[in-house]
Amino acid sequence: MPTISKKGIQMPASPIRKLTPFADQAKREGKKIYHLNIGQPDIETPEVMLNALKNIDFKVWAYTPSEGTLSYRTKLAEYYNKINYNISPSDILVTNGGSEAITIAMQACLNPGEEVIIPEPFYANYNGFACSADIIVKPIMSYIDNGFALPSIAEFEKVITEKTKAIAICNPNNPTGYLYSREELEALRELCLKYDLYLFSDEAYREFCYDGREFLSPMHLEGLENNVVVFDTVSKRYSACGARIGCIITKNNELYQTCLKFAQARLSPSLEGQIAGEAAVDTPDSYFEAVSKEYTARRDVLVAGLNSIDGVFCPNPGGAFYVVAKLPIDNADKFCQWILEEFDYNNETVMMAPATGFYSTPGAGQNEVRLAYVLNQDDLKKALKCLEEALKAYSLR
Amino acid sequence: MPTISKKGIQMPASPIRKLTPFADQAKREGKKIYHLNIGQPDIETPEVMLNALKNIDFKVWAYTPSEGTLSYRTKLAEYYNKINYNISPSDILVTNGGSEAITIAMQACLNPGEEVIIPEPFYANYNGFACSADIIVKPIMSYIDNGFALPSIAEFEKVITEKTKAIAICNPNNPTGYLYSREELEALRELCLKYDLYLFSDEAYREFCYDGREFLSPMHLEGLENNVVVFDTVSKRYSACGARIGCIITKNNELYQTCLKFAQARLSPSLEGQIAGEAAVDTPDSYFEAVSKEYTARRDVLVAGLNSIDGVFCPNPGGAFYVVAKLPIDNADKFCQWILEEFDYNNETVMMAPATGFYSTPGAGQNEVRLAYVLNQDDLKKALKCLEEALKAYSLR
Repeated sequence: MPTISKKGIQMPASPIRKLTPFADQAKREGKKIYHLNIGQPDIETPEVMLNALKNIDFKVWAYTPSEGTLSYRTKLAEYYNKINYNISPSDILVTNGGSEAITIAMQACLNPGEEVIIPEPFYANYNGFACSADIIVKPIMSYIDNGFALPSIAEFEKVITEKTKAIAICNPNNPTGYLYSREELEALRELCLKYDLYLFSDEAYREFCYDGREFLSPMHLEGLENNVVVFDTVSKRYSACGARIGCIITKNNELYQTCLKFAQARLSPSLEGQIAGEAAVDTPDSYFEAVSKEYTARRDVLVAGLNSIDGVFCPNPGGAFYVVAKLPIDNADKFCQWILEEFDYNNETVMMAPATGFYSTPGAGQNEVRLAYVLNQDDLKKALKCLEEALKAYSLR
Repeated sequence: MPTISKKGIQMPASPIRKLTPFADQAKREGKKIYHLNIGQPDIETPEVMLNALKNIDFKVWAYTPSEGTLSYRTKLAEYYNKINYNISPSDILVTNGGSEAITIAMQACLNPGEEVIIPEPFYANYNGFACSADIIVKPIMSYIDNGFALPSIAEFEKVITEKTKAIAICNPNNPTGYLYSREELEALRELCLKYDLYLFSDEAYREFCYDGREFLSPMHLEGLENNVVVFDTVSKRYSACGARIGCIITKNNELYQTCLKFAQARLSPSLEGQIAGEAAVDTPDSYFEAVSKEYTARRDVLVAGLNSIDGVFCPNPGGAFYVVAKLPIDNADKFCQWILEEFDYNNETVMMAPATGFYSTPGAGQNEVRLAYVLNQDDLKKALKCLEEALKAYSLR
């Protein structure tokens, strides 16, 4: 029997999905599960987007250009220029979800063995993409005590070597919900210019900023045109995770042309996804206002609820729809499995993502979990009650 | 400015799409272009598939399981079991097009620097996928004179080294249209067992076999369960290239679980694509009968037309919808550019794919082009006339 590749063996299983078999088993046993483990919002996709899908009028479901249709990229550029990105359609490369955007950019920018610095905890699949591209993630620690703020520039400089090629941030952050400030972005700007680094900016959660705080992108900073690579997706913005439409944005034309070669190899993003994505740009402001109001309320319920449980600490995030909370446990992987396998409260339980999968430093985050507030407030309250009872029961085992 | 990666520089541009700027310019000048360069059929997508898209009733466009929905995989297994693959839904991993299936399997099976043997000419993007995965394509030559039959087993054995991990075939073949015989597949079976190699079988064109010839897959061979990895896609079968829905099929569970980790990193294939793909399995036989009849007629027009031009030779392929033809020219890249840039016949011209991009051996295929018979017979005849006149004019320059 032929062997599996080393990369295949090293490739991490998704920490968000790896507990799925235990959840499936719990469901078979009749338990109701509150899914706080995955960033799949329950919010409805905008009607304009679903209607575009229902009203498709092509007879041949054809390839599009590898970079995406001009029509979609033109409309997308409008969206980005409303928020002052000052880009043209030729700066946008449409991808199969944000995931493919990251994979392509990593391969186009970094040689095998080169390094990207990422504040941890970070979106777990960055590990998978890096493993797949044979590049090295250099984590630097951010801390729950200050809400996971950007580590100091001195911390970045400590790990910069000749192999460092890029810094990656996710803003607002998955998994911490942290929203970077202008000062933090300016500091990254200086660092990237000083060391000639790419700045990868994963902006999947751009539309989810709370408490009146403004979203700022490295795209808004001057002099970084050749360094900044934005990753975006319709997944969260329009609650359309299943559409698998994302994009790379860069004003660095040489890099764009290189990414395009990777895109040409896989031929095309989906036609209907781009049609729907184009329609989505006309989603009315009222949709986002309602969504933002709902997420703010959910965040408030979840953060307050968590902090009211004995021994639990959860900072109040400025964006996205995740929190990372510290629990009075010593091993989140075991606890998150236990709560599915061996616990229920009135025949209900909670699925969470152990935070260890979001850290690259071994042993970090062992008493933390990520919770996505993608359920309505009533369900969140029930999930919180479950968690509270579970922690009591766990401590008494 | 940060540098581009070596891989990014080495990554080949698509030979099928790289002449697009010249075609665009020709169109701006008012020329009509017959597109024989790309495998985008003009055949209409089955109504059952388009209707499934129009009738979607979800409110939240959600992620699916990383391996694809159970519902779609169950239906797909029915399709495959009708043609005696004897598989279960858990042997199928749904991917973003056939392209992603190949990328994932290459990475799961081969270490960087390991080798896959592929008879050339081969589907050009295998070079891109291999470059992306840092693996080495070892080409062995097949020849136009015998219609691009499988090279002898002795030729395979000449290039097998300790680094050889897999053999890849595309059957029926893109770009040659060659349909492998049972004897050829049996020979590959022995070889893969003898040297413990994976056998990658790209079956995108399975439904397109002509002259009453039967399609055979390595899936039909006994004792190869741990070696065979099939790549498939809805793109050609249902003329749905823009849906980006493909799959990996393997009965090797260890390999399946490894591929699943790569699939988990990119989260999910598209929801609506799977819904439409599931509906597509119910496409009536009459659709395929009509399509097969049409392609056979087109092939006959194209092959006869090509062979009637002075100095042109084109074997008669048994499947797919491509031919590779030898032209009386010395550099197909230059000719295919020239015919777009500097030639027209009644203000019309032809876009073809230079065959050099389908060879990995430098200098091979310089007098060959790939033609896709994805246009109706009238247009094919006009394109043939254009080509004939172009060859005359080219020889007189």
